[in-house]
This record gives sequence, structure tokens and C-alpha cells, in this order.
Amino acid sequence: MDWQCELDGLEDRPYKPGEECGVFGAYDFDGGDVSPSIYYGLLALQHRGQESCGIAVSDTAGPKGKVLCTKDMGLLNEVFTPDILEKLKGDIGVGHVRYSTAGSSTRENAQPLVLNYVKGTLGLAHNGNLINAPKLRRELEYTGAIFQTTIDSEVIAYHIARQRLNTGSVEEAVAKAMGKIKGAYSLIIMSPRKLIGARDPLGFRPLCIGKRDNTYFLASETCALDTIGAEFVRDVSPGEIVTISPEKGIVSDTSMCIPAKEHARCVFEYIYFARPDTCIDGMSVYHSRILAGKFLAMDSPVEADLVVGVPESGNCAALGYSLESGIPYGQAFVKNSYVGRTFIKPGQKSRESSVRVKLNVLREAVAGRRIIMIDDSIVRGTTSDRIVHMLREAGAKEVHMRVSSPPFLWPCYFGTDVPAREQLIAYHRSAEDICQLIGADSLGYLRVERLDEIVEGRPICRGCFTGKYPLAPPMEDIRGEFES
Amino acid sequence: MDWQCELDGLEDRPYKPGEECGVFGAYDFDGGDVSPSIYYGLLALQHRGQESCGIAVSDTAGPKGKVLCTKDMGLLNEVFTPDILEKLKGDIGVGHVRYSTAGSSTRENAQPLVLNYVKGTLGLAHNGNLINAPKLRRELEYTGAIFQTTIDSEVIAYHIARQRLNTGSVEEAVAKAMGKIKGAYSLIIMSPRKLIGARDPLGFRPLCIGKRDNTYFLASETCALDTIGAEFVRDVSPGEIVTISPEKGIVSDTSMCIPAKEHARCVFEYIYFARPDTCIDGMSVYHSRILAGKFLAMDSPVEADLVVGVPESGNCAALGYSLESGIPYGQAFVKNSYVGRTFIKPGQKSRESSVRVKLNVLREAVAGRRIIMIDDSIVRGTTSDRIVHMLREAGAKEVHMRVSSPPFLWPCYFGTDVPAREQLIAYHRSAEDICQLIGADSLGYLRVERLDEIVEGRPICRGCFTGKYPLAPPMEDIRGEFES
Amino acid sequence: MDWQCELDGLEDRPYKPGEECGVFGAYDFDGGDVSPSIYYGLLALQHRGQESCGIAVSDTAGPKGKVLCTKDMGLLNEVFTPDILEKLKGDIGVGHVRYSTAGSSTRENAQPLVLNYVKGTLGLAHNGNLINAPKLRRELEYTGAIFQTTIDSEVIAYHIARQRLNTGSVEEAVAKAMGKIKGAYSLIIMSPRKLIGARDPLGFRPLCIGKRDNTYFLASETCALDTIGAEFVRDVSPGEIVTISPEKGIVSDTSMCIPAKEHARCVFEYIYFARPDTCIDGMSVYHSRILAGKFLAMDSPVEADLVVGVPESGNCAALGYSLESGIPYGQAFVKNSYVGRTFIKPGQKSRESSVRVKLNVLREAVAGRRIIMIDDSIVRGTTSDRIVHMLREAGAKEVHMRVSSPPFLWPCYFGTDVPAREQLIAYHRSAEDICQLIGADSLGYLRVERLDEIVEGRPICRGCFTGKYPLAPPMEDIRGEFES
Amino acid sequence: MDWQCELDGLEDRPYKPGEECGVFGAYDFDGGDVSPSIYYGLLALQHRGQESCGIAVSDTAGPKGKVLCTKDMGLLNEVFTPDILEKLKGDIGVGHVRYSTAGSSTRENAQPLVLNYVKGTLGLAHNGNLINAPKLRRELEYTGAIFQTTIDSEVIAYHIARQRLNTGSVEEAVAKAMGKIKGAYSLIIMSPRKLIGARDPLGFRPLCIGKRDNTYFLASETCALDTIGAEFVRDVSPGEIVTISPEKGIVSDTSMCIPAKEHARCVFEYIYFARPDTCIDGMSVYHSRILAGKFLAMDSPVEADLVVGVPESGNCAALGYSLESGIPYGQAFVKNSYVGRTFIKPGQKSRESSVRVKLNVLREAVAGRRIIMIDDSIVRGTTSDRIVHMLREAGAKEVHMRVSSPPFLWPCYFGTDVPAREQLIAYHRSAEDICQLIGADSLGYLRVERLDEIVEGRPICRGCFTGKYPLAPPMEDIRGEFES
Repeated sequence: MDWQCELDGLEDRPYKPGEECGVFGAYDFDGGDVSPSIYYGLLALQHRGQESCGIAVSDTAGPKGKVLCTKDMGLLNEVFTPDILEKLKGDIGVGHVRYSTAGSSTRENAQPLVLNYVKGTLGLAHNGNLINAPKLRRELEYTGAIFQTTIDSEVIAYHIARQRLNTGSVEEAVAKAMGKIKGAYSLIIMSPRKLIGARDPLGFRPLCIGKRDNTYFLASETCALDTIGAEFVRDVSPGEIVTISPEKGIVSDTSMCIPAKEHARCVFEYIYFARPDTCIDGMSVYHSRILAGKFLAMDSPVEADLVVGVPESGNCAALGYSLESGIPYGQAFVKNSYVGRTFIKPGQKSRESSVRVKLNVLREAVAGRRIIMIDDSIVRGTTSDRIVHMLREAGAKEVHMRVSSPPFLWPCYFGTDVPAREQLIAYHRSAEDICQLIGADSLGYLRVERLDEIVEGRPICRGCFTGKYPLAPPMEDIRGEFES
Repeated sequence: MDWQCELDGLEDRPYKPGEECGVFGAYDFDGGDVSPSIYYGLLALQHRGQESCGIAVSDTAGPKGKVLCTKDMGLLNEVFTPDILEKLKGDIGVGHVRYSTAGSSTRENAQPLVLNYVKGTLGLAHNGNLINAPKLRRELEYTGAIFQTTIDSEVIAYHIARQRLNTGSVEEAVAKAMGKIKGAYSLIIMSPRKLIGARDPLGFRPLCIGKRDNTYFLASETCALDTIGAEFVRDVSPGEIVTISPEKGIVSDTSMCIPAKEHARCVFEYIYFARPDTCIDGMSVYHSRILAGKFLAMDSPVEADLVVGVPESGNCAALGYSLESGIPYGQAFVKNSYVGRTFIKPGQKSRESSVRVKLNVLREAVAGRRIIMIDDSIVRGTTSDRIVHMLREAGAKEVHMRVSSPPFLWPCYFGTDVPAREQLIAYHRSAEDICQLIGADSLGYLRVERLDEIVEGRPICRGCFTGKYPLAPPMEDIRGEFES
Repeated sequence: MDWQCELDGLEDRPYKPGEECGVFGAYDFDGGDVSPSIYYGLLALQHRGQESCGIAVSDTAGPKGKVLCTKDMGLLNEVFTPDILEKLKGDIGVGHVRYSTAGSSTRENAQPLVLNYVKGTLGLAHNGNLINAPKLRRELEYTGAIFQTTIDSEVIAYHIARQRLNTGSVEEAVAKAMGKIKGAYSLIIMSPRKLIGARDPLGFRPLCIGKRDNTYFLASETCALDTIGAEFVRDVSPGEIVTISPEKGIVSDTSMCIPAKEHARCVFEYIYFARPDTCIDGMSVYHSRILAGKFLAMDSPVEADLVVGVPESGNCAALGYSLESGIPYGQAFVKNSYVGRTFIKPGQKSRESSVRVKLNVLREAVAGRRIIMIDDSIVRGTTSDRIVHMLREAGAKEVHMRVSSPPFLWPCYFGTDVPAREQLIAYHRSAEDICQLIGADSLGYLRVERLDEIVEGRPICRGCFTGKYPLAPPMEDIRGEFES
Repeated sequence: MDWQCELDGLEDRPYKPGEECGVFGAYDFDGGDVSPSIYYGLLALQHRGQESCGIAVSDTAGPKGKVLCTKDMGLLNEVFTPDILEKLKGDIGVGHVRYSTAGSSTRENAQPLVLNYVKGTLGLAHNGNLINAPKLRRELEYTGAIFQTTIDSEVIAYHIARQRLNTGSVEEAVAKAMGKIKGAYSLIIMSPRKLIGARDPLGFRPLCIGKRDNTYFLASETCALDTIGAEFVRDVSPGEIVTISPEKGIVSDTSMCIPAKEHARCVFEYIYFARPDTCIDGMSVYHSRILAGKFLAMDSPVEADLVVGVPESGNCAALGYSLESGIPYGQAFVKNSYVGRTFIKPGQKSRESSVRVKLNVLREAVAGRRIIMIDDSIVRGTTSDRIVHMLREAGAKEVHMRVSSPPFLWPCYFGTDVPAREQLIAYHRSAEDICQLIGADSLGYLRVERLDEIVEGRPICRGCFTGKYPLAPPMEDIRGEFES
């Protein structure tokens, strides 16, 4: 389904697992303004968070620690005007788009965080979720810390500030802070004269480096680099800290890196979160989805006339299914691209339904045909139910649903917003039961064993499918904890 | 290309011919509120106009002529909030989305027009362009009329009001007014107790009738009926006036219809304007585009590895090309769905380009391949040039462009916003020249002769391709005339 | 009381008679931009209307009839930004502030009206109320006119447009239109090359002419001329039409003037509506209020320690009372100047009251003293009741209320918004009853006979006090009539 | 002059010393919602700060530390809507209006501060200016603190949080924090179950206690208590900490109070900042201004016909002058009450001036008379110059200016925003020079010796007049220091 749906939802609550954030940083060694590039970079990452956004910049030649920041609730095109962007003058900067998994949806929680500390000013943007944030927060409070947000990024900021008292450089303080924090995090930190990127040792969330002339970039996804015409340099490795400065270029002090026994990339980045034109750790997201479709064709074959994707995230897997099965690939739906985050949802009494407002079936393409319909996941099942129904209304003879991920069964503690188990349609239900519930003629999921294959053997976290996590989950439920 | 691009443009001025308007009307004989259905109906027509929008409703059981209206510049989700919609109480109503071809882009010119006249109050929504509006307007002024907008819809309103003095019914007044006005128009008129639809004798613009329970609808496109769960009843015929009232249901008095020697549907509705899930006069827009793609494959064949559409409007024709040629259909681009009408365009000095911000190439899908890229039209050519270039950068071995319409060569006087001839890339240039300009390996247009075939013989206007118009064009250029 | 109170009210409905409008026009013969002067001129007239406002300008050297207009609901500082003002380029223009007495409070009804007619474009701003507008409107409709607003100003516009067909100049058309319309009106009309001012034959509403270098102004009140540094030239006489053009300067063709047997200025302009720093027809509003206070002291003397005004409109009369009586004048109230039109009114359940939020008593000034408190009028009496109560709470020994106008007893048909008779406290009640109701120790009104004296013999309308009107009131209630 | 002028200014920079803040807190022991009372209380304090405002509330019966807060740039009627206020549910709360003297004008710096710390959540509102904040801030940073604002209130919050680690109660932590911080501060602190008020030992800024039924209030000024219908209980004493809780009512533990050798109330609170209907430490502000006027009449007598105040802050002193001298008191100016913070200031090229837009002279009252004009202070002198000029233009025979404070000569380090010495007209100039500069016939200031008398012997700070401060001023200029 489309990236935009997390927030407005076809139902009251999101029908797709929510992504948590996108981060983007830039440093122009020639002193040019970076805020336009950060704006367009974030625009390419908007699918990772539509709740709030912000950009903080600083002029490295200006007074040390003078940071300009604009952040607010809303999409980039709601928060930023040409006037506002024009005023954000600076050659180093960091930006953020947010979808809240930890901390409330309030303006105070928007990022980047900008904070003064012993060595000047830091800007910090964070994608991910810590599992020991409540514990660390309590510890900090017991030494006199005060917290002005409910996001765990503030815990990270504190640790960096405290470590900085006894270390020779910001990056060293970051490294020491990383020794304390546990969980998923891709960080971009702007200090008065350095741009720093860091990724957690398990590599849950992506982070990469780009370059355009004498400007360097850090970004959640490579598609953001393409958008601004920058070339991809390399991924930041799990556990790595990268420092970008005019004096030394891109530096990664291996003594600071934090090793992990095995990595645990979030496989859902490949299946749904990331844009298909992104590569994560050398693996094309597009290709990964094509593979998922091919495996579905191998493992859940069915005779049919047409393979279609539920727009837009089902399209790649549908193409893969078609390539493997030889059944023609086509288009069965038209999506209304004007139905955005802020459209007025039909009320309970209304005769209209959100699904119909968003999607319409191409009767001409569907009538009298046997359809294989591919989506990337089923969360509650209500949307699938309606779409299957719409296809039948339009005259489809058969509707076979294929899902390019295994059934969701467990919560995620590393930044993906999965509803409570009780709301997951696959919880305590067989595929046959689900098939009947949504009214399809057949239903096939991607087999869990295929997950390794669709990322060509890269180590992944598959906790939401299996309940086996790379890090022991916290005893307490951590999401939103800081608010009470 | 995508429906949203008319306004924001990849260049300073639109790179696609602009559509002019969408209209939607509703009448609930059971007295229920129609404004939600009008809102969702217009949302399905938003691709026809993103500049301004409005809804006017009336309560047929209330005081005669009490009309509530909200209209303003902007998209539906910018103009309407749940609160505003809630206040628009009424069982009869009419709505409009506008893209200006005649009259300035000002709030005064937003529709529906709401006006008091001798018999009460009318709401009027108009899609199309009159060719004798300036003359009629001058005539009206010479009898003491005053005009408060610069749109030709006000001329229509005046004629209906004046004819009403000597006629027994509104629909008769509409019929007489239609005897005076010339050009393209699909009208929806709300009188205190009737909903009236009318279509010009040549049938330039579409208009259809729908029904859901005891509520009747008039809409520019059938996709709007699908969106609200209404069933399609029939098209309004060219020259027909349809009256909807609880007393008589749907009535079409043939004595009032205005015959035409031959119809002249705008073929560009099929090629680009209308949504593919719409049927116009019995012809599926989707099917028409599939046919266009097939004819391109027949008339301009080329060996290649992959057929792709420029999203989103090129996709159907690309599928048709693939079906005919046997060359696999795929996806080469990812479109950023967050780049809307209000995104900040990169400045002249910026390193970013609008095309890159909107589209990215799926390198994985394209590299090393010979690509056939299908778009629905080329206006100035600058966008095609950049997209071809992006494909090559991504490693495409060859890029063959196919266009699912003939070259644009002439202005349109019937509501399509085509730039001046001097700005059309095809003006005084051969296909070979254009191919070279945009840097493609080959270029093929749909042959003019195929236009009849893609609409299966329905009579069409092809003035913008041939310069031969179904009505003599006005001596003066009529667009924006009223403002000076 | 203060000018701002009409809209926000101390009660749910206004506790002061509402004023209807302010008008301002400018023409710079040297071609400079007039919109800043119109903005500041209107700002000085904002007390006359806070509901909507607008400015229309034209460039007399540019294309004939090209008019730029910005108007919307709200105060000037809400509707106009520097950017908007900057774009309103033109050397001739007209502006308006509105408080609705006829026609709903909707954006469509905001003025100036801008309309195209047979001779180009007119901008029209109107202060006043016609008594034969419904009749004229019906007549116009029976000749095919359409109306897009519910204000009677549109009726005036139509008459000018129609008369213009058979007359040699705009001002002549205005004169002929004035032969048809009846009631109260001060008009400013901007034609492509002329600025025209007109005032009804009875002279209900004020209108004056000003000059600054080579720029000429028309304004509702002289305070607007002071504000922009212009000198007062003269009042427009009742029934006069003044034409301002570079060719002839200020011209008043006596053949066009409409004589009246006797004038009938609205005396409430002197008592409350106009700013005290304004002169109307040679009479200082300040001086008129001082006189009212003096007469109150003569006619309703009482022993006391302090005379105070209810801020701000009672202050001048209080000073007059003090001068005549010798009792010291002082200050008893502090008004909160941040409580504007948009402040949140205390709810029914709230412990706070609107009066307390707006006014506080200076306990120190009041305690132990006998107070004479002067207000300009009593409408419903609820506010007076609360203020008297507040003074007693603050320790006042006695509270004597004096009102600088006679009791309100009749409706106004000429532009003043007086509540229905049933809501007027003086309706069927003696001064003694009212005194008891509001809890004062004594109550004195200005005697009706004094009205002539406070305007030094100028002929006035006193209909709201006596029920005797200078023009026969309409049979039907005309306010808001056009909306049904 | 009027309270509103600090921000918009008659010149580019404020022509009046800026006040710094207003604070208001409430606790309803019966569990009712306090946000409406806080809103109206702050509305009565809006003259103390128009830059930003905020309200934070908590439900003492709800989850401990759950705080709802709304704060933003702008006036109360811009930031708060009925909807927003409705959502702020809680029986304990604190509010703030801000005019920045320390820290930039950014949204981050708006108050109240809401922060989580070791014992839950605190809301903190602060009026005043610390002189050792930079030093304390550096010390905190050297122990790992991070700062997210540039206001010194955050320094106070940190000290409370740290002291709380080793103390048994919040109020004790506040007391210990007060042992560290130096300067001017009136604080209101909301902890999960207590409302705490504290005032610095020298008593620079006011703070008082009120009560209405079972609800208790803390407020900067008594006028805020009047506005919400609460009764005044008593002032918080300099150096006192007051704790309000349902268990113990109002408690003031003398062991926690911080004694001072002598108090040092800001005398400018009496002269200009506070509303005249406020009492500070038992002294009526109104009475204090009356006294100032009387002393001016004694010390700088002159023969004249009329005494007038420059609205609105000069009015009380003018009345005092009149009472003492026997010269009649009157009104010479009309102030435009629609010229607020956001009005568009006339540009350099404009023919209009800000002073004229704001004030007009009552020619009738002034012409041919000898005027004594009283203002509360002269800062740069440009406004006085223009007003004197306007009076002369209006025909005043003589203009004698009297100022109800001594000449400004020194900076203020305790929260008053006085321009740099070089911009003060009295710096290196005699009264005669100034009189000539502003074009008056005579000029008299309040004598410094009279300051004690106008506050009837209460100990005051007169640093801005004499350069002798009650606390040694900081070596570094502290205002805005944290931003670089």
C-alpha cells in the first residue's frame, strides 16, 4: 500500500505497521547553504514519517553554537515555506521526519533536538527505538537531569553531553554513549564543526553516506541522495561512527566502533518501509521485493489471468510474481493521489468508505478474470476484505491474495509500530481462517524461510514474525512510558 | 504524467495541457445531507482542477433560495474541514473544482456561482469554455448588466436569468440560454427544487448521471460515482438537458434538446484528462489508452527489453504496448507522492531539479536494458529531455520514447490550456528533430488516423492536432479577455 | 463604551447599537500608490465596522478597468499583511470597513464591490441602508438581473450601470441612480479615471473631502484625514455628488445635486458612532459630547464627589458634566486593551464574567465616594447593571448614572443596528423602573429637546428616540431580507 | 503610554522600557478545571508581555506528572482558541505571558517550562532576570547538563531538580535553589500535588495570593485577581516561599525564607509597568501615580489652561497634577484602539507616521490653550518630539511637558529592557537640552528624591536612575548571552 497511509489510515488506526523516522544531514565544506538540500532530501524520506519534521542548521564560520531550527507538526510542505527555508542559513545541518513510536505526537517531541551543552551546541536527529531508555532516563533523573520531551532521543543527548566531560572529542562521547544505550538507532549529530553519523551495532535501521562536489551527506536511504543529485559513497556499517569534517573528510575510527556478534537489519525495511529505489547495505529494495514475488509464485502458485499489486507497495512483488509465473502483470486499481494525510474521513453514518475514496477498481481490466492480488502485509485484515470485495463487485471471477511477508504475530521493540497482538488478524488464526475472513479464493504468505533469501543472506531481525529477538525485549512496555 | 502536475509544473509553466474543471451535483429525495457525497465526488475529480473548489447546498424543505456556499483557492483538503462540511446542510447541492483557462486565478472566480434572480436562487457549476462569451458579455453590458467575475460562467448565468422571465421553467430557460452560447460546456444547475444537467450540442466535455438509493447525482466522470458507491445510470447526451426532481425523477424533454450535425468529444479526455477508471459515452478511458499503446506498438515497433510508462498517465499505454509487442512491462520510476501542488520548487541556483525531486529511476530495473518509455504527450519537451537523461544515467542501454497522442500543433478554444504555439516543441519541428533534442534513440507519436480507433469511432474534436475545429474559432483570443 | 464592543459584546448580543460601515477613497494625481493611505485611513475608521474590510485599487495609467481587490472577514490587521498591501498597486482606490446591518456576515458581502459594466470597471463602497432596496431589487430581477450578494450596495451598483447606458458620464449615472434609491447612503465610487463621492439628500451618514499635496481623499470621518496627514477640505453636502479627476480637480455639478426639504443627520453619529476627534458638517463630535454632559449636569444635577465616564465613549460627556457642575472629573475604570473582537467569552458555567474581564474598578479612586457615572446609552441594561454593581463592591457610597442620549425606543431603518423593541430596557419602562433595575441611586437621560442643542441646531434624525422618521419607514422589515 | 506599545513601537525599537513577564497559577481543591481562570488571569496581565504566552495544567487526581501544555508566540487571543482551552483539563496549573529580556524571541523560549525530573513533572513560570545565570549555567554544563532554551528560567529548573535529590520536599528544593540564584525573580511552580510561589529576597517583582471559594491563585498583579472575581489574600513577601496544597492550605515555612538586609522593589512597576488597578505590597499603583503627579505640580509648577496625559499611562499622573495645581484635567488625544502589535508600520517612504496612526489630537480641546502634557517617561525622545509637534499643529499656545519619573540614565540588570545608554536622550544631556530637542516650552522630571515618597517609604531599587544597584551588577552583559 502507499506510504501515505500510516497516518490517515483506512480505519481509525493505521492498517500498516508505522515507520518511525527519517534522518538527513549535510555539510558543505565550501560554505554554501545546506538547508535546500536537506529539505529535498527529507522530501524523499517523507514516507518514513509524516507527523512532524524539522531542520536545524549552523554556520561553521559564524559564532560557535549559533543554531537556527524550524520544526513543527505536519508534512514538509506544511511546515516549510520558501521564506522559512531562506532564513535557515548555514553550511552544516541536520533534518528529521517523524512518525511517533515512542513519545506522544506533540510539537515538543519534534526533532532535530537542539541543545546547548558543555562544548557548545548539538543538533541531533534519531531514527529508531531504545529498549533501555526508561532505565537510563531514571538513572539520569537520579543525578539531577531534567527532561523536556518524552522521546528517547533526549536520553541519547544526555549521555553524549555527560560523556563529553571526560572525552577529547564529540565522536568519542558518542561512542561512549553508544556503550550505554541499547536498541535500534541511526543517529546524525551536528556539532559546531563536525557532522557525525552513527548506527547501532545490530544495524536495525539504515544509514548511508553521499557526496556532491565538496558537500557530504548522511541519509536514511539512498533515494534521498539520488533526489539531490549526490552520489552514494557507502553505507555506515552497523556499530560504526563516522565523522565528517573539512580537515579530515570522512573518518571512521575503528577503535570507536562497537562490534556485534551478528547483525539484525529490520527485514521490514526491505518489504515495506524503504522506497524501492533505495539500496540498503548493498541490497536493492526493488530487487528484494521482486524476489519476494518470485518466491510467492514458487511456493503459492495458482492459475489465473492477471497479477496485480495493491498500490503502491504491492507492485514490485506483483511484477516478481508475474515474471516467475508467466501470468501477465497489469493494473487493477486507480489510487486517488489527492487523498492525503489531512483528508476528511467518512463518518460512521456516511455512505462513503475510506477505501473507496482512496482506491477504485479498473472494471475493464478485471471483469471476467481470475486475479492474483499482491500486498506487502496484512495487519488487521479489514482493508484486504474490502479490496477483495471491490474486485468481486467489478466482476473478477476469482481473487487470490498473496502477501509478500509472513504473518505478523509479535510486537516490535525496535521502532516499528505494530498494533497489539489481539488486533493482528494472524494472531491465533490459520491462513485458511484469514482467507475466509477476507473473502478471497486463496491466500498465500511469504514463508519465513524465504526472508533470508530475499535479502540474499544478510543477517536480519525477524522478531515480529517469530517472536525471537536479537536483543532481549524489555520487561516493561516502553512505548510512551515517559509520559505518565 | 501525474494529474497533480498541471499546477506545480516541472518547469515554471505547466508542462502538460491544463484541464479546466470538474463538476458534481447531488439531490437526495429523502432529505439527507448531500455535502459529504459532493465532497468525496469532487475528491475523485480533483485531477481536473486544483486551483480552487467549492460546494453550494440548499435545503429544499427550507426557505426557498437559502443557499449555503463555501469556496476558495486551494485543494479540497485545504478548503474544507469537517467543521465547514458539517455546516453545509442541504439535500440538494452542486460542487466544482477549477483549473483556470478563462478568467484569472482569484477567489472571486471560484465556483459554484450562487446568484439570486427573479425566481429565487441558482447554484451553477460549469466545465468548459465558450467561444462567444466576450460578445455575449458586451451585449449584456449594453443592457445594463454588471459582472463581478471574469469567468464566462457568469455570462451563462445571466442568460438563464433573462430567459427565465419569459419561460415557464428553469430548464426551459437553460434550453433557451443554450441557444445563445457557443462552445464547450457541461453544466450543473441547482434551482430551489430541481437539479439540472446540460451538455453542449457537440459534447466536448463529459457529464453523466448516477444514483444511490433515492439520491441522484450528476458528475463529470464515472469514477466519482464509483467513489461514493453510486451506480452509473447513463451519460447525459450532447445537447441534452436533464432535470432531476422528486416529482418526476430524471426527465429529459427532447423538445428542449439541441441537436448537432456531428459530435466533437475532446479526445484528450481519453488520452490524458480523465481518470482511467472512468467511462465516457460508453468508452472506457483505460481501454482507450490500452488501444493507443497497442497502435504505437504496431506503428512504431522497436526491439527492446522493457516497456515502462512515465508515471502515472503513461502506464496504461505502456501496458498496451507490452501486450501488443510481447516486450515485458515493468516499472522504471518511483514517484514521490509527497511532492504536491505546494512543494517548494528548486531555485535557479539550486543544485536540485524539480524532475529529480518528483521522480527517481529504479536503477536495478533499468541498468543494461533497452527501454521503451511511454508518455501521453510532449508539450515543451524539457521534461522528456530530463527523464531520458535520467534513464541513461541509470545505465539504460537505449531509450525509445513513444507518445500516446499526436504532436500538439494548435491552440484549443474549448477549455484545454495549451501553451502558445511558439512554445510547443512540435511546432515547426519534425519527429526526428524532437528525438534528437530530447536525446532519445527513437521517437514515435500516435498517428492522427489512430485517434478515431482509440475511441472506437465516436466523433471527436482533434483541433489541437490538426487545426481543424468543429466550430469556427473566435477572431479574438478569448482567454482572460474580460480582465482588461 | 469602547468602539470595539459592538462585536464581541459584553453579552451574547451587542450591548451597543451597531454602526454600519466606514468608507475611504484616494486618488493620487501624481501616480503614486494609494493603498497605504487607504489602509491607514481605514484603520482610523475601524470603529465603524469590524466584521469585514477591503481595499480595491486601479492604475489609471494602466489598462482601463484593471482592478486589484483584497477583501475578507476580519479586522484590517487580520486581512492585510505587508505583502498583500504591497501587491495592491494603483493610484486610485477605495476601501471599506463593514459591520453588517443588511445582508449576512459572509465573505461574499464584503466590500468594496468590484464590477464590470458597460463602461469598464467600478469599485463601490457604501455606508448606510436603503429603505426601498427590496422593491428595487425585485424590479431589477424582473428585467433579468442576477445578484451575487445580499447587500443593498449591489442594488445601487445595478442602477448606476443601467443609468450609464443613457448618460454621458458616470457622475450623471450616479445622480440618476440617486433619484431611484431612498434611504441613508454615503458612497465612494472609483471609475477608471474618476473618484466620485455622493451623500444621500438627507445627509444621514457623514462624508468629507481631504487633500495632501496632489492626492485627494474621501472619508467617512475627518479623523481619517488627520491620521494620514491630510488637510480637511470640506464636507460633501447632503444630496451632493463630487467628482475628483486630474483634469478638473474637485467638481460638484449643482445640476446633479438632489435637494431635500430638510436634512436629517444621524444624531447618534455625534453621541456614539464617530470618533471624538472627528468633525461632521462643521460640528466637533468632541464638543457635542461635552455639551451633552453639560446639559445632563443642568437637567439632572446631583451632589457627588466624582464624575467618571464608562470607558471610552462616556469620557467626553463626563468631562462636560464636570465642567458644568464643578464636581471633579476622574477615572474609575481600567479597561483591558487586549480584550478584542476575538477574545474567548466566559461560558455560562464559568465563574468569570465578560464585564469583569474587560473592565476593572479603581478601588482607590472610588471607595467611600459618591460617583456620577456617565455612559452614552443604555440598550438592554445588563451591562449598566453589572458596572453599577462593581462600583458598589469597590466601596462607592452612591452611584448616579447619567446617559448622554435619550432612551432608545424605536428601530432604526437607516443603518444603525438597534435590537428589537422588546429587548430595549426603555421599552414600556420609566426611568425610575430602569434605575431600580440597574441598581443605581439615580438615573438621568439626556432630554430629547437637548438633541438639537448638542448639534447646535443642525437638522437631525431622531427616529430611534421618537419614532418620527424623516422618511416613511418601509412596510416590510428590510434587514436581511434578500437572503430568504 | 499604552501597555501595548512595547512591541510594535512608535519607532523601530521600543520607545518604552520593556517589561519582562507576567505569571499566574491556580489550584482548585474541589477538582474543577482551572485553565479558564488562568486564561482570564493572564489576559489581565497581558500588558506585562505580548511576545509569547502559555498555560500548563495537570490533573492532581490523574496519573502523576501528566501535564498538558500549550504555548506559542503571540498574544493570548492568537494562541488560545475555545477548542484549545477546552482540551487543557486540570485542577492545577500555571500560565505565563512573556516579553523577552533574556533569551531570544523564539517558540522554544516560551513559558511555562514543563519538565520531567526525578520526582515527576514540574511546570515553572518565571518573571525576572538573574544576574548570575551565565555562571550557574556554565557550572551545570560542566556536570553534564543540556539546555534546550536560552532563558535563565531553565537554570532555575535545573537547580530545583538537583536540590530535590537531597531534600524532602519540592519547596525545600526551591529554597535551596534560591540560595544559589541571584537577581530578580517571582516564580510559580506546579508540582504534581502542590502549587508553589516564590519571590526573590529583594522583592524586585510583585507576586500575590488570591482565593475564590476553594480555589487558590498566585498572580503577578492584583488586577488579575479582580478580573476573575477572586479576593486578594496577601502579597508573597520578598524571600518567601509559599506552598498551596489541599492538605495544608497556604503554608509558608519561615525556616525556608531567605532574608535580605533591605528590599528593593522595582519602582518602575509603580511608575509604568503595573496596571493602575493593582496594589503592590500594600501600595496602590493608581495612588502612587497620583502622588507622582502631585509632586510634579509642586516641584515643576507652570501656569496653564489644561493638564492632559499621554494615553494611557500618563493619565493618572496628569490627574494628580490637576488635583494639586487646580488646573483643569482634560483629554487631548484620541488613541486608535485597533492599532495593535501586528499593525503594518508605515515604511520609510510612506507619508504616514506611526505616531499619527496611533494618536490623534482633539483640536477642539487644545486650540488656543496652554497645555501641560504628562508622560511616565522619556526614553529616546522621538515620540515626545512628535507629540509636542502635533499639539502645536492643533493650535496649542504652549506645551509644557512633565515626566512622572526621573531621567533614565543607567541599564537595568533585573528584568527591565532599557536601551543602551547611548540611545537614552538623558544620557549626557541636561533637562534644558532635552526640552529644546523635543520642542517643548518647559520640561520637568520627577525628582529622584520623590521616588521614596510616591511609594510611601517602601524600599525600592532606583538603579536605572542613579546607577546604584542593590546587587552588584554582573561583570559581563548577561542579556542574550546564552545564544552565542
